[in-house]
Amino acid sequence: MSSLYTMVNGALVPAGEASLFVNDLSIQRGYGIFDFFKIVNRKPIFLEDHIDRFFNSASYMALDKNLNREALTIQINELMNKNQLVESGIRITLTGGYADDSYTFQDPNIILAQFPLQLSREIQPGIKLLTHEHQRQFPSIKTIDYLMAMWLQPMMRKNEVSDILYHSAGRVTECPRANFFIVTEDGILKTDADNVLKGITRKHLLQLASGHVKTEETEITLEDVRNAKEAFITSTTKHVLPVIEIDRKPVGAGVIGKTTKLLAELLNQKVFFSN
Amino acid sequence: MSSLYTMVNGALVPAGEASLFVNDLSIQRGYGIFDFFKIVNRKPIFLEDHIDRFFNSASYMALDKNLNREALTIQINELMNKNQLVESGIRITLTGGYADDSYTFQDPNIILAQFPLQLSREIQPGIKLLTHEHQRQFPSIKTIDYLMAMWLQPMMRKNEVSDILYHSAGRVTECPRANFFIVTEDGILKTDADNVLKGITRKHLLQLASGHVKTEETEITLEDVRNAKEAFITSTTKHVLPVIEIDRKPVGAGVIGKTTKLLAELLNQKVFFSN
Repeated sequence: MSSLYTMVNGALVPAGEASLFVNDLSIQRGYGIFDFFKIVNRKPIFLEDHIDRFFNSASYMALDKNLNREALTIQINELMNKNQLVESGIRITLTGGYADDSYTFQDPNIILAQFPLQLSREIQPGIKLLTHEHQRQFPSIKTIDYLMAMWLQPMMRKNEVSDILYHSAGRVTECPRANFFIVTEDGILKTDADNVLKGITRKHLLQLASGHVKTEETEITLEDVRNAKEAFITSTTKHVLPVIEIDRKPVGAGVIGKTTKLLAELLNQKVFFSN
Repeated sequence: MSSLYTMVNGALVPAGEASLFVNDLSIQRGYGIFDFFKIVNRKPIFLEDHIDRFFNSASYMALDKNLNREALTIQINELMNKNQLVESGIRITLTGGYADDSYTFQDPNIILAQFPLQLSREIQPGIKLLTHEHQRQFPSIKTIDYLMAMWLQPMMRKNEVSDILYHSAGRVTECPRANFFIVTEDGILKTDADNVLKGITRKHLLQLASGHVKTEETEITLEDVRNAKEAFITSTTKHVLPVIEIDRKPVGAGVIGKTTKLLAELLNQKVFFSN
């Protein structure tokens, strides 16, 4: 399929041959964490943030045995040099490792996989979301647990929406792979800070926004969403992606709002032209 | 390590070489289901029940593409014939399959792995449990999601307990890999029926018990547990395993109760001598 290489436990192997034995605890018990960063013009974007979060996830899930920041950075560079992709993403996956009893941790396995990406420099058309009641079990950790998100795919197709918006106890949290923001009627930019994954794009977006709009990291209720003037989601590959409809109801006027546009431009500027 | 064989997508391979490519959705997204049955004197125990549940899990998680009951039964027999184990367990794992985009289902991968087991014919010493607030996200489905259970392992070791007892909203449900039963002061055998995995051993135990004690499949509160006279857990390998302490407090008199003993004997009789 491609001539790319993947790194498994420090060794470069053709991407199509990279494998793990079936007694790995990701296959046996869904146990693993990961992170994903993009590379623009051969340069990783917000790499230190991603590695910080990766190490935090690894430590929290007791997978940081044998993990070394300097060694990991060297491996990332080795992989990028081998694959020579101009615009791409690298996914670092750390699994529970091999366990003959299917349960007891030994040595984690680490996989670095690089994929070509085509990132848009333009703001994308607004998308539709469907809400679903769910709370991720380790919200602040980037685990590989996407059972619910994957299971909801047929429902997404049936409802012709691009993504799911999780809520729990009336509180709107995040999408499965993106953070969620609203702009209130008063023009305040809000995103939840609890029970969500703290996205790297979320962090930089909040910093960029703070010079332009009032920002609040706070609880967002389902009612707040119904009354919102604008909404959008953020992620490493989606950047600022406008949301124009939630549960078949338009967000605000049902078109991309001006704050969303401004923030999308500020973020694109930072990602594509300031690095 | 051993001369056993594992079956991957219908092909027998030496157990130590069985592998999946890293773009499998179990490794990428923790997406998969499994089942596990035991083999005593070369004969599978409650096999039809396990296959029923496996197909139900597969169907619910949209993994039943290409799955055929007759073909699976033939593969199980082929594996047993190859490995020639007298007492063993077979784990059937069905994963989300390979996905280049790390997200979209294609063809699931199926792994049949057989392990030697040494099953006790005697009632085991009573164990200690620690409660933890958690609700599995697809309780009736045997998914590979054991993130919480695995993550709690250090806490189990620190507290010197053998297993975790989940509860949610005051309601006691199950252990990560076993069903939970109490015998009330009035001598009623109770186990929850909602938000738990319906164990095969649970089912047969309830049938066996019904001729001897009053049984109820009903809500069990934390207070019910504190007032219980006896408690035990059941699973395919544990059979009836007595529980004598929960959260550092004795269950009843803190010794194995007479109903627990009776039920353990009835189950052992059925598993080891009636099949």
